[in-house]
Amino acid sequence: MQAWKEYQEQNKDRFLNEMLELLRIPSVSAKSEHAADMRTCADLVRQRLQDAGVDKAEVMDTAGHPVVYGEKIIDPSKPTVLVYGHYDVQPPDPLELWHSGPFDPVIKDGKVYARGSADDKGQFYMHVKAFETMVKTNSLTTNVKFLIEGEEEVGSPNLEEFVKAHKALLKADVILISDSAMISMENPSLDIGVRGLAYIQVEVTGPNRDLHSGTYGGAVANPATILAKMIASCHDENNHITIPGFYDDVVVATPEERALMAKAPYDEKEYEDDLGVQELWGEKGYTTNERTGIRPTLEVNGIWGGYIQEGAKTVLPSKASAKISARLVPNQSSEKITEKLLNYFRSIAPKSVTVNAFNLHGGEPYMTPIDSKGYQAAAKAIKETFGKEPIPVRGGGSIPICTILEKELGVKIVFMGFGLDSDNLHSPNEKFHIENYYKGIETIPYFHKYFAE
Amino acid sequence: MQAWKEYQEQNKDRFLNEMLELLRIPSVSAKSEHAADMRTCADLVRQRLQDAGVDKAEVMDTAGHPVVYGEKIIDPSKPTVLVYGHYDVQPPDPLELWHSGPFDPVIKDGKVYARGSADDKGQFYMHVKAFETMVKTNSLTTNVKFLIEGEEEVGSPNLEEFVKAHKALLKADVILISDSAMISMENPSLDIGVRGLAYIQVEVTGPNRDLHSGTYGGAVANPATILAKMIASCHDENNHITIPGFYDDVVVATPEERALMAKAPYDEKEYEDDLGVQELWGEKGYTTNERTGIRPTLEVNGIWGGYIQEGAKTVLPSKASAKISARLVPNQSSEKITEKLLNYFRSIAPKSVTVNAFNLHGGEPYMTPIDSKGYQAAAKAIKETFGKEPIPVRGGGSIPICTILEKELGVKIVFMGFGLDSDNLHSPNEKFHIENYYKGIETIPYFHKYFAE
Repeated sequence: MQAWKEYQEQNKDRFLNEMLELLRIPSVSAKSEHAADMRTCADLVRQRLQDAGVDKAEVMDTAGHPVVYGEKIIDPSKPTVLVYGHYDVQPPDPLELWHSGPFDPVIKDGKVYARGSADDKGQFYMHVKAFETMVKTNSLTTNVKFLIEGEEEVGSPNLEEFVKAHKALLKADVILISDSAMISMENPSLDIGVRGLAYIQVEVTGPNRDLHSGTYGGAVANPATILAKMIASCHDENNHITIPGFYDDVVVATPEERALMAKAPYDEKEYEDDLGVQELWGEKGYTTNERTGIRPTLEVNGIWGGYIQEGAKTVLPSKASAKISARLVPNQSSEKITEKLLNYFRSIAPKSVTVNAFNLHGGEPYMTPIDSKGYQAAAKAIKETFGKEPIPVRGGGSIPICTILEKELGVKIVFMGFGLDSDNLHSPNEKFHIENYYKGIETIPYFHKYFAE
Repeated sequence: MQAWKEYQEQNKDRFLNEMLELLRIPSVSAKSEHAADMRTCADLVRQRLQDAGVDKAEVMDTAGHPVVYGEKIIDPSKPTVLVYGHYDVQPPDPLELWHSGPFDPVIKDGKVYARGSADDKGQFYMHVKAFETMVKTNSLTTNVKFLIEGEEEVGSPNLEEFVKAHKALLKADVILISDSAMISMENPSLDIGVRGLAYIQVEVTGPNRDLHSGTYGGAVANPATILAKMIASCHDENNHITIPGFYDDVVVATPEERALMAKAPYDEKEYEDDLGVQELWGEKGYTTNERTGIRPTLEVNGIWGGYIQEGAKTVLPSKASAKISARLVPNQSSEKITEKLLNYFRSIAPKSVTVNAFNLHGGEPYMTPIDSKGYQAAAKAIKETFGKEPIPVRGGGSIPICTILEKELGVKIVFMGFGLDSDNLHSPNEKFHIENYYKGIETIPYFHKYFAE
């Protein structure tokens, strides 16, 4: 496969610059003001697929942001690989914490700093460039289809309908996704699962207006205090989630899997230092990798109410709100847990406030079998370019569409992530190591090679 | 006193328009961007004192916003009344809840809607117009001094130094303040005390950056959750404050005072309906009037952290903050309680977060004796114009400077408020009844008359 290496060596600067161009588009799916940027980004992705050598590429409308589809069918009798990715990104705020503009990619110490560099523009684009490599060196051994959506960061609300409507178009033998991380370049790993998600908003209203905290303080329920009490009640002293029935459907990991997980390299001190915390905090009886992998969690993603600006305002707020989400593991159902969360916050509210709780988005947990043909091809590809077997791990993040893709298309998903947990996904100063980017482009063609064998 | 009535009748429109002019200046002391407006407002107050007939009026600098001073000495052997008020106002936000611009006074149903209408521009200006009435009708029987400050809403951080530096200038026999409310026009009342204040900010920091709630959720302390647990721990199931030593110095009201308070007109249903709540909420074992009068309280004034905008962001916030304040009763010390609050939040924080807690502002509780000459003069003045004895009540709000004024000047304070609790002080759509404004201007001269007798 010398030809691949040579072609990539000759084009590596262009490969990088094309990724930077994608990162300059603020394709924030959560913010309506970015609707036009979403369209611009979709058009560019379509053009890049075209340039890379697909037979056809189109921007296809949905009820929300458009989907970009591309395909190259070399021989209907050959296996088909469907590459899934997303061109939308998380909102960049808090902006003041970025060292450079989130949409002005900066290269520093061998890393590209920009929102979406690792999640997921940089990673799905590895597939476009790997595909180009195989096409331009006449070594493509599989049919390839690209499904690049624009609503992953908001729960893919319209993709299920899209997939159902285009089953024939999307027909494939395996789904390949690079929207996750590996442990490190020294310890390559492959995700064998992602967690599900149930994301809600809770709004607590007390008095019909902000009140003078002296005139009324002590006589009416303070919605910020009530909300705090509600949130505080969600975890017990062992950080076990107290919401009734929350753990009912959890598939407990086997001692074998936990033993295997324990083998993954992990340095608590390093982990703490990277996050700048003196002590970790989580569910009693589980390791850090277990807490972020095989256990469900509940986190406050945002909270606000009352006077939050400079100085002091002696007000008793009329309203306080929070965004709260749970990460789910097999076999929890996003819909069931969302209902449990909503009911919990509605039911524990005292009569002196009113609660408006509603669903924001969700997704199901997903597991992929290690003995599947797809996983085996990915493992061999990793071994080929990294020189060692990948460690199978459970990812903590969520890719809401996984279960829908498997259900509708009837094939397994392979997660082949080249990012790192420390890439600041969803955080200020998101980054992607250029070395990992190139390593991904180098590795992916082997996946196609081995999957076709 | 026919002359007073006639003069006020002839000038009532101008009296009102002059108040509106004051209200058009956005003199928000908490916001640095309003520094120039503060100066503009001070200059106008000075000019109005001049026009009203003082011998001298000046804008005097402090380390913060300036103080306006004015005086008319008719005869050094006569008693001197020092009128205290403040020309600064609370921040107007949340702006979207105002039915008209907070600084574009609108008259509706006999009320002036604007920030500062009742607190305190409209109320201190009653004294300016009452003073003008006495001067122009040659019936002033006391010396009069005006001390109108610009930092009451931020805790009067520079007034103590000012008062200490100008003791001779401010020398008086009584201090008269209209910065509080009465029960109603049908049930006139006089405050015999105000609560103290201890106002702090608590900032909880977990990881050194916002994190992906999937990758790290469950493994590190979430500062929003920790802050919620801290706030939830401040009250027990009876809404009794749990902070160690919080009640140590509280002077428990006598059965006699509680019996007297119980006589004040109060309709729970009306109170609930006005606030739009189904049920009140407060410290067990006390009535609403007791909870807002003779008992100390602790309220969250603001809380914020993480993603608080449109849509969903799956982030584990690096930081969460809250503004928290306590109302104090005799003999609690603002400084002592502030220390207790700061220590509490610092001490209960788990090692997995760091807490930065600091003081924002405060003030001491204050009580005025019913048998004092000043209170008696005020009671007689009220009887004169309202036709009935005022009910003595304890106000829930705070006027931080009271204890300092009494300590430095060695005289008692009389609270003569003409606003209503329902005037939306510190809230959107603050208002002041024009009838109350005129009633105040009509009543105040009688105070001077009876105090001089």
